[in-house]
This record gives sequence, C-alpha cells and structure tokens, in this order.
Amino acid sequence: MREEERLMSNANLTILPLGGLGEIGMNMTLMGYDDEWIVVDAGVQFCDAGTIGAEKTLADLDLLAEYRGQIKAFIITHGHEDHVGALEYATAVCPAPVYATPFVYHLVNAKHEIFGRGRRPDIHPVAAGDVIGVGPFEVEFIRVCHSIPDSCALAIQTPVGMVVHTGDFRIDKAPFDDHLTDMKRFRQLGDAGVRLLLSDSTNAQVPGRTKSDVDVRAGLEKVISEAKGRVIVSLFASNVMRVRALVEIGEKYGRRTAMIGRSMEIYGEAAQKAFMMRPPAGLVDERSVERIPDGELLVLCTGSQAEPRSVLNRASLMDHPDLKIHPGDTVVFSSRIIPGNEKAIFKMINNLTRLGARVIHERTANVHGSGHAQRDELEEMIRAVRPEVMVPMHGDYRFLVAHKDLAEACGVEDVRILENGHQFELSKHDALITDHVSLNFHYVDGPLVGDADELRLAERRRIAWNGVIAACLKVSRGRKEWEVALKIHSVGVPYFDEETVGMARRYATEQLLELPLDSSRQVIEDTLVSSLRSYVRRITEHKATVLPFIEFADD
Amino acid sequence: MREEERLMSNANLTILPLGGLGEIGMNMTLMGYDDEWIVVDAGVQFCDAGTIGAEKTLADLDLLAEYRGQIKAFIITHGHEDHVGALEYATAVCPAPVYATPFVYHLVNAKHEIFGRGRRPDIHPVAAGDVIGVGPFEVEFIRVCHSIPDSCALAIQTPVGMVVHTGDFRIDKAPFDDHLTDMKRFRQLGDAGVRLLLSDSTNAQVPGRTKSDVDVRAGLEKVISEAKGRVIVSLFASNVMRVRALVEIGEKYGRRTAMIGRSMEIYGEAAQKAFMMRPPAGLVDERSVERIPDGELLVLCTGSQAEPRSVLNRASLMDHPDLKIHPGDTVVFSSRIIPGNEKAIFKMINNLTRLGARVIHERTANVHGSGHAQRDELEEMIRAVRPEVMVPMHGDYRFLVAHKDLAEACGVEDVRILENGHQFELSKHDALITDHVSLNFHYVDGPLVGDADELRLAERRRIAWNGVIAACLKVSRGRKEWEVALKIHSVGVPYFDEETVGMARRYATEQLLELPLDSSRQVIEDTLVSSLRSYVRRITEHKATVLPFIEFADD
Repeated sequence: MREEERLMSNANLTILPLGGLGEIGMNMTLMGYDDEWIVVDAGVQFCDAGTIGAEKTLADLDLLAEYRGQIKAFIITHGHEDHVGALEYATAVCPAPVYATPFVYHLVNAKHEIFGRGRRPDIHPVAAGDVIGVGPFEVEFIRVCHSIPDSCALAIQTPVGMVVHTGDFRIDKAPFDDHLTDMKRFRQLGDAGVRLLLSDSTNAQVPGRTKSDVDVRAGLEKVISEAKGRVIVSLFASNVMRVRALVEIGEKYGRRTAMIGRSMEIYGEAAQKAFMMRPPAGLVDERSVERIPDGELLVLCTGSQAEPRSVLNRASLMDHPDLKIHPGDTVVFSSRIIPGNEKAIFKMINNLTRLGARVIHERTANVHGSGHAQRDELEEMIRAVRPEVMVPMHGDYRFLVAHKDLAEACGVEDVRILENGHQFELSKHDALITDHVSLNFHYVDGPLVGDADELRLAERRRIAWNGVIAACLKVSRGRKEWEVALKIHSVGVPYFDEETVGMARRYATEQLLELPLDSSRQVIEDTLVSSLRSYVRRITEHKATVLPFIEFADD
Repeated sequence: MREEERLMSNANLTILPLGGLGEIGMNMTLMGYDDEWIVVDAGVQFCDAGTIGAEKTLADLDLLAEYRGQIKAFIITHGHEDHVGALEYATAVCPAPVYATPFVYHLVNAKHEIFGRGRRPDIHPVAAGDVIGVGPFEVEFIRVCHSIPDSCALAIQTPVGMVVHTGDFRIDKAPFDDHLTDMKRFRQLGDAGVRLLLSDSTNAQVPGRTKSDVDVRAGLEKVISEAKGRVIVSLFASNVMRVRALVEIGEKYGRRTAMIGRSMEIYGEAAQKAFMMRPPAGLVDERSVERIPDGELLVLCTGSQAEPRSVLNRASLMDHPDLKIHPGDTVVFSSRIIPGNEKAIFKMINNLTRLGARVIHERTANVHGSGHAQRDELEEMIRAVRPEVMVPMHGDYRFLVAHKDLAEACGVEDVRILENGHQFELSKHDALITDHVSLNFHYVDGPLVGDADELRLAERRRIAWNGVIAACLKVSRGRKEWEVALKIHSVGVPYFDEETVGMARRYATEQLLELPLDSSRQVIEDTLVSSLRSYVRRITEHKATVLPFIEFADD
C-alpha cells in the first residue's frame, strides 16, 4: 500500500497554515479532523511603503469561507496584531466562537469599539490552565512569556495524539510580571507523549537566550539615571509590563511619567480590566508635559517604527501638539528596528538629532529584548516536549530551515517545513504533505477588504507609473472625410500640460481623419486609444491608460 | 562691525552643498570665489520602493542652472553612482569640462554609450598627483583607498587658504591593489596649514578601523575553500579589485569563474582600459555555467541589493536563463545590506534558501568590508590635516553630529554642520553660514528629468490611492427638466465594476436632474464632479479624481 493510500484509509488530522510561514507575517493555521476545524490565530501583516493601495495583508478569506460551518472555534494565543488583527474579518466570513485570554478579550473589544466596522467577535475569555472542548479536540491553554501579557501556548488533544502549539514564546527566568513560561507542564506533556510540536521560529538563527526582563530593566535604568534632560522612550504599547517597569524606574529617579498616544491608553485600559491592574499614580497629562522641568519628566510614547501618524514621528517633525523635542533630551527606542522600517526610522532619528536629542536604540545600548525564544530556549522547548513530528512555525523560510536543523540536532526524527497553503496530514503513525492549496491573500484598504483584483492593486500601481488620459471624441461622417471633435484630460502623466495635451489632441485627430469612411466604431475607438497611447509613449516612454468616450453625431 | 559685515567686506570662499548632507545621498558641492565656481561630484540617489514615479533623485538642477557660465569645472572624486551618476544631467544644464581619474573617464564613457540620452560629458583624465588650475583654484588629486579603483581626495588651493576634500575614503594598510591612501601627502598639507577640511562621515558612529582587504580576502577564501557545491558571490561590480581577488581565490581552489551581469562587463572593461589590466584568463562563459561541475565553479554576479532585474534576484526566482540555484550551493553576499533594501534582500534570501542554497552575508561571516573610514581612521585623517575649520560631509545628520564630536575631541576648534542648501562663507579668518537656499530636488523617470511637480509625483501617488473616474455628460434643457445622458469609465477605483459604475451613474444623474433649469455650465460641472466623488467616497472612503466632459446639446 502506498503511503498516501495508507494515510487516506484512516481519519487523519489535517494542518493547513494560511499565513505565517515563508516570509509573510499574518498568522493563521487551520487544524481539522473529520470535517471539524479549529483556527489558531487570525493575524494581519502591515504592508510596507512599496505596496500601493493597501495598509494590511490578511490570509485568504475566500478559502476560509469554504470552511464556513465546519469551523467550530477560533483560538487566539495572544494579543499582537499579527495574531489577532484579522479576527474581525475572519469571524465575519466564518462565524464561530473565539477563545482567548482576558487581556485579548478586553483588547479586541476596546479596539472594536473604536475602530470596528463589522460585528464584534464573540470572545470567550479563558485562563491559562483552562481546557476547552471543541469538536474532536480538547484545547489546553498554557502560560508562556512573550512581549505582551497573557500569552499562551496550546496543548491540543486530538484523535491522532497530542499537538503542542507554542504560539509566540520565550523562556525568561525573571519576567516583569513574574509569570514564567510553564516549562513544567511542557515537560509533563513530553513525558506523556507528544505527536506534533508546532514551534515559534522567529529567532532560530540567533544563538543564546533572549535578554531577560531584569536585564532590559537594568539597561533602561542606566540610561534614565544618567540622563540630564527629559527622557522619551518609544516602545510598543502592547508591552504593558515594560511600560509599567518604566514608570517605576521614572519614580525611582524623580521623574513623573506622561504616556502619549492612543494605543498607550487602549492597552493600558485592557490591562486594567484584565488584571485589575490599577493605573500608575501621578501620571502627567499629555497636555501638561511642557510644564514639567526637563529633568523630572519621563515620556512614554508610540512611534518606534516611525509610523507616519505616531507620536514620536510627529514630534520629530515638530508637528505634535503636546510633545516637543528639547535640545539635551534623550530619546530611547526600546524596540526592535524592524527590517523594512529601517529607512523611515533612521530618517526620524536624523530629525530627532537635528532637534538636539541624543538617540539611543537596541543597536547602541541594552534597552530592548526580543519577545521570541532564541536557539537555547528553542532547544529547551524541543527537549521538554520531545515530539515525534515537528513543524517550525512563524517566520521567514530561512528561519524555518534553521529551526529544522536545530530540531534534528536535538534528535527529533521527523521535521517538516511547511509553507502557507501546504496541507499536512497526520495519522498516529504517518505524516504527509498531501496538497499545496494556492492562496489568494486579501488586503485591507480603509473600509475595504478584498483580494488584489478586487482592490485593483495592479491597476493602481500601473496608473501611478503611467498616468491616465481621458478622451471624448465626437465624430460624424462628412461627405468626403470625417468630422472630428476631440477633447482630452490627463492626470498623472509627467510633463503633460495644456500645450502637450493640445499636441496629443492634434496627433490623434490626424490619425482619425485618415481612417476610411466605412470604418467601424471599434476601429475608430482603437485608433483613438492607440494614437493617444503612442503619443504619450513617444514623449514619456510610459504606457498611459486611455479612457475613451465616442459619440457619433449621426447615431 | 558685525561678523557678517566683516565677512562680506572681503572676498570669501563660498561652499554650497546641493546634496549629500542630511539623509539624502546624491553628492554635489559647489565651491566658488568671486563668481567662479567648481562643482565637486555630481551623484544620484536611487529611490526606494515608496517613491512612486521615479527611479533616481538628483540635486536641484534649476538652481545649478543659475550658475551656468560661472561653473568652470566639475571635479569627480570617484566612479560610484552617488558621486558621478548625475554628471550627464548636470553638464547638460551647465556645460563645463570635467576632471576625473582614468577609471571614471572610461566608466562614464562606457555607460554613456549604452544608456546615455544626452551629450557625452567632456571628461579630461587626470592622475593622482596631478594639479589642475581652474579659475582662482588649484586642484590637486590625492590617491585614497575606497571600494572602487582610482578614488581621489582633493587638495584645493583657494585665495582664502587650502581646502582638503577627502571624497569617500578609508585607510587600508593592505588594499587589494596596493594603492595606499597617501597619508604622507595629507600630513604635508597639514604641516603647510589647512584652512578647511571636508571629510567623509559615513562611518563616524562606527568604532575602530575598516576591515582590511587582506582580512576580507581571508574571509572569502575560508568560505570558498570549505564550500562543497558551487559558490555564487554577489557584490558590486564597481569593486573591481575584489572581483579580481575572488577570481584568484577561485583558481587557488580549483574553481573556474563565471561573471554574470552587464555591470560586471562594464566595470571590467573600464578597468582594462584605465589600468591596462588584462581580463582574467579562463573565464567561463555565462551560457556554459551549467556544464561545469558544481565543485569547480565560482560565479560572480550582481544583485546584492535584490534589485528586481539583477542576476541573483532573477536566479532566486528561477527566472535567469543561465544561472540556476542548485541544492548545496553557497551564496555569499560580499556587500553591505543597505537600509531600505533589507526587506527585499531577506525575501531573496528566503527564496535562495527554498531552492536549497546556504546563504552567507556580512552579518554572519567575514565576507565584506566597508569602503568608508571608521572612527580611528577619521581621527587619523583629522590629525594629519589639522584643519582650522572642519565640515563633516557625506552622511545622515546623525553621522555628521558624531563626526563633529570626534573632530572637536581631536582639537579642531571650529566644526560646522552644514545641510544641503546651506551657504557657507569662509575668509582667511572667519567662517559663517550666510544663507539657507531652499532646494527643489529633481527626479529621473525613464527618459524624463524634472522636479516633483513636473513629473506629477504627488498626483501620481494620489491617483494610485484614490483612482480615477472619467465622465462624459451630454445635457440639454428640456421644457420642464434636464435631459441627461451620462457615461462613465473608472480605473484604479477599488471594487468598481459594471454594476457599481451603473449605480454611480444613476446617483449622479439624479443629482443633475434636480438642478434648476437656469444653472450655469460651471454649476453643472461642479455637480457632476461632486456627486461622483461623493458616491465613490461613500463606498470606498477614497477621493477619486474625476475627469469630466460636458456637452450641451443645445450649444
């Protein structure tokens, strides 16, 4: 019996990643058995400057929609946008209950209240340690450290055996919130036998361990204690515990804290609701920062990735109503410089330097630690879980390969690299990639969600490079020749002004007048379009889009 | 007497940087005395993916044109595009002789023959050590190491004293071509007294010294000697001496070399002509690479920055006619990962990894050295030249500030940070920024060169995000109401299909029918445009550009 047939003859567990593997970041994985499915995470990916017409990318919603009715639950591992940002769109096409920790619950609800366009996802809060039953699965939430509170891994009991999905994790012996990654539970699972491990590969190429929160705290404390002027720290608002630690460090060194930026508020409030964490005392209102002496102020704000409307970017352009940069200020990036954002970040750093600030970032000081396990931690996880089969998750292809090599060195016998769209089937004894579904990513453009065709992404790129000519031709057959009246508008065609438009009009008119009098409407239209296109092309080497209207006077 | 008046009362040397300072990379500096000017370098900057509608940025050609007739010469320090890429455009608006070393001479001529659109720049080859007289200036070319052959610094004797311009440089004790940076000459100049030093700031934040070519050679040799399959090295073709060293290393380890890519040819030929350097023996023709056993082949190619049409990028997409990636190949990036290109480069690395290649780059091995002096070398230059005044050149604002701090620590008393457009005046005893000219950068879009307005850059970005609607309205006044016939085309409007266009047409028609019968043409046009815009806006939240044609039947 061939392997494929043998697999097919039994009921199998199917894993189908729709995003998160390869180089795209929106995490979403389907897991199904016998036509009952769960979806682990539903994230977005923010588009870079090169993508014209969309702000975010999502997994293939049309494919997801085919599972409507069969999807019994969404399980969210933690509250980062690349894990939960597509939840609203995903539950709109596949309504199903969502299970997530209280922080995610409050966060999604708060964001939905402010930004939401559709129906609010139906989230059921669960705590680390809880087990929920969904169809043929039992899903246990396991506490892990990451860079946002209330992160969990999943232990999913399936008919073919135990599946462990780490989510995003690291192993910190001294995290800000004292919530350790529950390695004891992972070891227990390993002892009982794990069929499949799906594990975070982000830092599989980075040796050693992630910096502990105590060390990051010490690094931040050093910078703040030594600073003379104000200290402005930009970081992801989602790193709530680091925000808390910064407020405490500020207090210790006689600085009152101002938090500036909408996200600071949203994440702070979600933390208050989820953990009954009281807001820090004595915060400075953002409108009052200019009234606090420089040496007594700590500002926490967003903008570490130089997002155009973020607080720090606006301040660097002297365009923020409350936050001004003073000469002698210290600006700290407690964050990663994410590839793709480097140019914008360095430009912002230049502007901050020009205003007299000293700028400190992860490449020059000890002010940030990654949220993703490095090689030694990944090894610790593999050795705890000791899976029969492993699939590296979450990361660029090169990271998946590095994680595979590591797992094999740790003795895992069957490590498979999956890519988005791979259908991976698992029985109790076999494992096989049985299909590669082609995926049609979706995009968000303001209120619109659709695939590249629906959002006209290629068309929009084309007109940006080539411009548009609209032409209105009134034509009638005279006795011996055509009578032709042509009007033209242009937009986005370089160097096209009134004079050039007039020349294009004359050129097209000449071409039209040469047509035989029995020419069809189609021939007239083709001549109009091609003569205008070739005129633009001759001058600009661009292929303008021509929008023609033709009116026959004798119609 | 105020400082400014005192300065003005004498004839001064004026320095006016048009590019290269701040965060923009196209280097061009004007230097003038008594209405006679020279221009040092004429470079371009390649646009990033976020710039729609242009490939390259140049300095303000309109401003340059104002100096037509007064510019007596262009002086080019070396052949990198950010120093010479705008020469054709600059000499077109200001015809003047160009002085440059033989390698630049042959390079510009070769490129002009292939890509040139205008008149060939009139270059006079000069050798290191030569002195040329231009108006009130005597310009001496001084040999420096960089990452392209035949690079020079300049010692410019002016009526207010000696000005030293380092160009791009580093101080390597063992460069590939044995051409040392002429520190003896810099020390002589320092002994005789230097009024002003303009010095390369690119690596002013990087401690220590640049890696010597011997060390880079050793790093490359290690990788090549250990590789099992083919070795494919991507690097800038302009680094001719590193290309040569690679061929030699290949020979040593029994590998024949194939050079793939147009630039490899162009730079190689320029080197042959300039230095009478013979082409390496036994090269493999690019069409034959598949016939050489993997372990006996070394490929040198372009594409280290993942440029879309480059050899390596095409190979990574299985789209190059000659170069295929085999499992087990080693791909080496002997180059910097330039900020702004990271995302594209990492994507290419993922694709190469997917095809089975092992990828090595400067962040993982010793396979590249920078061409720009690091702090210890910068200090060595400052201590050799001992200028009265110094201006940090070439680099982001943050690098200029770091270089200023370094120079002050070395005892230079007057260090000025200039930005593009600053007019800096220097007498024998004073130095003052007297003006800040506002600059209007120019762009290259295929055959077109112009400013942002002329190339319609903002308009092109707007239509890409918002789309275009063309509308043709035939209207006539009936007895009691308007008679209206409206046709619509759309392009780049998300989700606009036949049905939506029909709905937009009906909505606009309704609005038009409600107008009073005595409405003017302008009111009709405004109503047409605003009703279509508001319809698109309601559906997509985009502000489409509407191009209206109106035809009165009773006209």
